[in-house]
Amino acid sequence: MSDKTQIKRPLVCIQGVGFVGLAIATVIANSFNRDGSPLYDVVGIDTPDNQCKLDLINKGKLPFKTEDASFGVELKKAVLNNKNLVVTSEESYYSHADVVVVDIPLHIEKLGDDYSHHQLHQDQFEKAIQTLGARIKPECLVLVETTVAPGFSNRIIKKILDDAFKKRNISSSPLIAHSYERVMPGKNYLNSIRNYYRVFAGIDKRSSDRARAFIESIVNVKDYPLREEASMEASELAKVLENSFRAVNIAFIYEWTLLAEKMGVNLFSVIKGIKNRKTHNNIMEPGFGVGGYCLTKDALLALWSAKNFYDISFGLPFSKMALELNDRMPLHTVDLIQREMAVKGRKVAVLGVSYKEDIGDSRFSASETFCKKMLELGAICFAHDPYLEEWTECPDIKFVSLDNSLREMDVLVFTTRHKDYQNLDKDHLLEISRHGALVVDAFNILADDKIIHLLQNGRNVIGVGKGHINIVKDQLNWQKS
Amino acid sequence: MSDKTQIKRPLVCIQGVGFVGLAIATVIANSFNRDGSPLYDVVGIDTPDNQCKLDLINKGKLPFKTEDASFGVELKKAVLNNKNLVVTSEESYYSHADVVVVDIPLHIEKLGDDYSHHQLHQDQFEKAIQTLGARIKPECLVLVETTVAPGFSNRIIKKILDDAFKKRNISSSPLIAHSYERVMPGKNYLNSIRNYYRVFAGIDKRSSDRARAFIESIVNVKDYPLREEASMEASELAKVLENSFRAVNIAFIYEWTLLAEKMGVNLFSVIKGIKNRKTHNNIMEPGFGVGGYCLTKDALLALWSAKNFYDISFGLPFSKMALELNDRMPLHTVDLIQREMAVKGRKVAVLGVSYKEDIGDSRFSASETFCKKMLELGAICFAHDPYLEEWTECPDIKFVSLDNSLREMDVLVFTTRHKDYQNLDKDHLLEISRHGALVVDAFNILADDKIIHLLQNGRNVIGVGKGHINIVKDQLNWQKS
Repeated sequence: MSDKTQIKRPLVCIQGVGFVGLAIATVIANSFNRDGSPLYDVVGIDTPDNQCKLDLINKGKLPFKTEDASFGVELKKAVLNNKNLVVTSEESYYSHADVVVVDIPLHIEKLGDDYSHHQLHQDQFEKAIQTLGARIKPECLVLVETTVAPGFSNRIIKKILDDAFKKRNISSSPLIAHSYERVMPGKNYLNSIRNYYRVFAGIDKRSSDRARAFIESIVNVKDYPLREEASMEASELAKVLENSFRAVNIAFIYEWTLLAEKMGVNLFSVIKGIKNRKTHNNIMEPGFGVGGYCLTKDALLALWSAKNFYDISFGLPFSKMALELNDRMPLHTVDLIQREMAVKGRKVAVLGVSYKEDIGDSRFSASETFCKKMLELGAICFAHDPYLEEWTECPDIKFVSLDNSLREMDVLVFTTRHKDYQNLDKDHLLEISRHGALVVDAFNILADDKIIHLLQNGRNVIGVGKGHINIVKDQLNWQKS
Repeated sequence: MSDKTQIKRPLVCIQGVGFVGLAIATVIANSFNRDGSPLYDVVGIDTPDNQCKLDLINKGKLPFKTEDASFGVELKKAVLNNKNLVVTSEESYYSHADVVVVDIPLHIEKLGDDYSHHQLHQDQFEKAIQTLGARIKPECLVLVETTVAPGFSNRIIKKILDDAFKKRNISSSPLIAHSYERVMPGKNYLNSIRNYYRVFAGIDKRSSDRARAFIESIVNVKDYPLREEASMEASELAKVLENSFRAVNIAFIYEWTLLAEKMGVNLFSVIKGIKNRKTHNNIMEPGFGVGGYCLTKDALLALWSAKNFYDISFGLPFSKMALELNDRMPLHTVDLIQREMAVKGRKVAVLGVSYKEDIGDSRFSASETFCKKMLELGAICFAHDPYLEEWTECPDIKFVSLDNSLREMDVLVFTTRHKDYQNLDKDHLLEISRHGALVVDAFNILADDKIIHLLQNGRNVIGVGKGHINIVKDQLNWQKS
């Protein structure tokens, strides 16, 4: 299928081959008829500046590390065995597509420090939709998976495609649907597409029917029944609402973290007791901070819509405050460290650069906020992450091996819940760390007996949400060394 | 057991015989040895101004209505058959108690409109503890079930009992533990005590051991393992945290309700789709408002502690905002109604006065906030509630029968999710309501086909979080009559 004459099956184009688009493309390419033959030919289309990544994928290789081994296996199978998946920057494929799945991001950022003002970077996104409008067949379904500002599909995407069809003298309306992805990078990467609940809505009945049939052919709708909403607005709203709910629940615990630390209470223990209640099992634990592409910005998209599309002056106060507090959260660990020592000149390692466990994705990582502040305060920062070899956002921060960071650092901060850190032999941590080293347990990796053991052997320990460590220190008559 | 000479078993005194205390007393009185004999004698002690209620209970009668039929049955059994439960205002029983369970409330209220300033009404509570200090045996366990400002047991209750013991030349320390109740009034009233998770903590090992043994004798700890926290502070914190979590999750949906209504989206449908995610199944639905004794004030107790005990300037911004928005929520329904009509002179009925479904408890009910505002605007308010015959907080609002309210009102507001309203024949609602009547569906009681039917027959319908009703009206070319 390296040229168009090789297209044998219904063609699905994936617009944007990133963390989401490539996973979706791989799943679609590995959707089969009962006789075992592939259902679709799949072409992933990205911008020419991604050529390096595209070349790698076309060799059947994943351009990033993941804990989901099946991802690499399935990608390779699609590219080399099925031969029904290619990626390219060649846009002319769109003219042949039966379905285009839109997986390019719609970026938004806050302006200055004020979460009430934001810039929606819609130009690039709109250009991509214009490309589709100029090329797609009238009966091609445009399935938007991108998380957009609610109202965007009906107010912006529809208008662009309508105008393009008009220009091309196409009398029919464009077929548009919205169905947001719930991809969970990590060990359930592909599974989170195939075996998970989907919500969708079409702009009209024809679009809905087409979207339903397409999704049913790639998702396990038998076990995860498909849910149709009455409007694309509802589907768009659902996505930003579910991520804002999550962001608020994370941020909510921040205030209780501060209180529990002052009270000498182990908030992890308290929350374990609360989670027994079915009505409360989504309560979050204290942590180092929240990062990644979704939770740090989806509420902004809703704020943008409330203001620009729907003229709601009340705004979304909880969702807005969640963004603010989540951004501030890594600085709490800076405060905790500063209470123990002057950080100037200290060697500090963050153990975990990724925003999420068991994936190599450093976008909007809380470690970045932390390191930038620590550097500002004169600390010397190092990084370790089992899934990354470089840190795009902080290129000057040197990577060290895990053993070297344990051995050489004044401050060790466990920042990401990677399994490598969870499985780390905690006695080894004691054996090779410096006398007087400060271990910061930012996600409850250390059990109380390990903390006591470290304290008894001249290491210092603090933890986010672990106020009881101070009481332990009092009981040990522990002195800072 | 009407006098002390009849005490045959270990004596448990319940301090405060309210919605919680009476339920706890009933459960304890119906806890049995293997041979079927009662484990305890139980005396509930309340203030003399409650004599009327006490007399009723001593006849084996519940002083309020509930959907839990077993409550009445078990109370009667304890009082009349077991004969091991009496209630009284006679404090001398405390001198004989082996355990005192403290179930009197610790009231707090905000000062003015500012949720940052609050008055903790600790005097009455402290006096009650002084009463215990002056009377209890040195080896009596004081088990505090009251939701208190975190830190209160250790800083205030302990001090009062210490001082009292000193005065009485008792050399041992008072035995104190905290274990908060999670009583759920409604159809699972008693069950929510016996078959539910318990958290507790003692001030020292002796107190913990005693508390554990006592709770194990009345709660099904086999299926609901008991959880011990390291300090009373942790137990106290857990209670206000879990209720603040709930309050925040309710308030969070308010902002999305406003957005969904403007967008023409049915937020109930959107949320149904989101709740499929296990990580999101605690997301709340839009609603009329939140009331009751706990969710409207527990966060205030935490705010009070943060400020007065722990000197935390950051406060608890989410929990505070939740109180503010939840208080404001019923006024949103006022706004919705005002968009449809001038309310002056209109007859308006709230269907549901209780703060919660299937229980007769009007404390801090959202209907109260709503009616007060509507009265201010010149409406004539009526009330219906299957569980109440009078409205303590709004004594001037007349109760009407359900049929009469359906028949005579200009505005009908479904405010409480009572099963009587859920089971109401919606065609009957149409048959007997006035032409032109406005039905306000504040908790998603009406399915879309019923809404369309009402609209087609000259009734008006609006709903909280149901923006799609406007789209339905557009499609019907619906005109206000």
